[in-house]
Amino acid sequence: MNKEVRDTLYTQAKEWVLEAGVRVRKQMLDPLVIHTKSSPRDLVTTVDQETERFFAMRIREQYPDHHLISEEGYGDRLHTTEGVVWIIDPIDGTTNFIHQRRNFAISLAIYVDGIGEIAFVYDIMQDYLYHAKRNEGAYKNHIRLKPLRRNFTVSESVLAMNNRWLIPNTLVDESVMEQLIQEVRGTRTYGSAALEFCYVAEGIVDGYLSHSLCPWDIAAGMILVREVGGITTNIDGDPVDILKKNSILTCNPSIQESIIKDYIEKGRKA
Amino acid sequence: MNKEVRDTLYTQAKEWVLEAGVRVRKQMLDPLVIHTKSSPRDLVTTVDQETERFFAMRIREQYPDHHLISEEGYGDRLHTTEGVVWIIDPIDGTTNFIHQRRNFAISLAIYVDGIGEIAFVYDIMQDYLYHAKRNEGAYKNHIRLKPLRRNFTVSESVLAMNNRWLIPNTLVDESVMEQLIQEVRGTRTYGSAALEFCYVAEGIVDGYLSHSLCPWDIAAGMILVREVGGITTNIDGDPVDILKKNSILTCNPSIQESIIKDYIEKGRKA
Repeated sequence: MNKEVRDTLYTQAKEWVLEAGVRVRKQMLDPLVIHTKSSPRDLVTTVDQETERFFAMRIREQYPDHHLISEEGYGDRLHTTEGVVWIIDPIDGTTNFIHQRRNFAISLAIYVDGIGEIAFVYDIMQDYLYHAKRNEGAYKNHIRLKPLRRNFTVSESVLAMNNRWLIPNTLVDESVMEQLIQEVRGTRTYGSAALEFCYVAEGIVDGYLSHSLCPWDIAAGMILVREVGGITTNIDGDPVDILKKNSILTCNPSIQESIIKDYIEKGRKA
Repeated sequence: MNKEVRDTLYTQAKEWVLEAGVRVRKQMLDPLVIHTKSSPRDLVTTVDQETERFFAMRIREQYPDHHLISEEGYGDRLHTTEGVVWIIDPIDGTTNFIHQRRNFAISLAIYVDGIGEIAFVYDIMQDYLYHAKRNEGAYKNHIRLKPLRRNFTVSESVLAMNNRWLIPNTLVDESVMEQLIQEVRGTRTYGSAALEFCYVAEGIVDGYLSHSLCPWDIAAGMILVREVGGITTNIDGDPVDILKKNSILTCNPSIQESIIKDYIEKGRKA
């Protein structure tokens, strides 16, 4: 994709992301919507679906030859990453959306022939727009994110991960993850994969681990992390398949190998 | 303490909290301080100590008959809660302070004969000042916090707790805490006790559990939570001793009894 085409696409996508943000913010503040009789989960589904529909309609109209992968049913079932593929989570961080009315985000990425070209993660309530174009760095609003710090160890790191890693599970023996948790300076759980990728890119956590994430949870975050020198793989260190669910380790390269070799591999289940 | 005296004290304390916030923010932005040769832990200790000294000097000078309980050595060793007692954590959320340069807070409370009268928790980088006077409600900046929602169950709740609850420990059997975690909608870990109390008061999490917290971690938060109808006890449901370390459950009353009876009690170790 040449620079001019990409820049135009980036500008268009940014406009839509910000417009969708305004719509979501409005829906959240409107007492008629907040005091709906439907369950909290219905509410989020409505906002979720409406937001996804907003993107899907515009993409179909403006770019009929592009593809869409998304959560709420407006997307395509793709078996190949060929062509231009938009990958969208209209509201990442569902529980936060319902319970906190903050700490959720729109995640939108554009991949071309499988390569991540454009990324947006929009923390709507904080008005933080994380964005990136391939090989042009990652930004938080107008501030360019610095390359990730180097030359430190797991014992000097902070990781984002939820506590399912410590409950018996099919992926990694929990006793090994206990050792990891006791080695690091701290762990954090924020409840939005897209934002947790952003926090890795910002360097406020040094890695984020998840048992299973969908394409729309990770597509934009992977680009942001890559642009500051970070690495995203599955928990075995293998490349992520952007068309499928994957286990995820997105990470500062200084500690990635150690997390895999000294911890995950030792407790990895078949 | 009569209202006029308390209002004067509140105004004075607020002025100092905001002034201390300006000083901390300045210290964090100054490249000379950030690029110090000392270790990250030395840096935070310096800011911590300077901030505590800032409060201690002013309190000693202005209120020589008041007492001070605080983290970094400028406080008194008290064996009674009689009189006016300031309880201060100059930087709550040490690891966040070092690694994230946000998500930490000044916590300041004033207790009179053991009763919490005035509370401030200042999230400096977000410029969110949580504050309360006894029986006059709790506020986030100029917005009064609503009474906590009622009539919901543990399965509809979100809890703040770190993952040490799932590692073998002396307090509660981890298998019981696993059951709690699998019952709730989600858990979060933010890394600042003072802010986690604020999130309970705001209702964005429904409870916060900790193995062991010091008086300065909880003194202001307990007042804020109380002012919106929340309850703070140790994990057995017994009153907190504000002069000592305590295990902590600060909680929405709708789920407090269930968390203790259906979970903690069943796994409680001697």
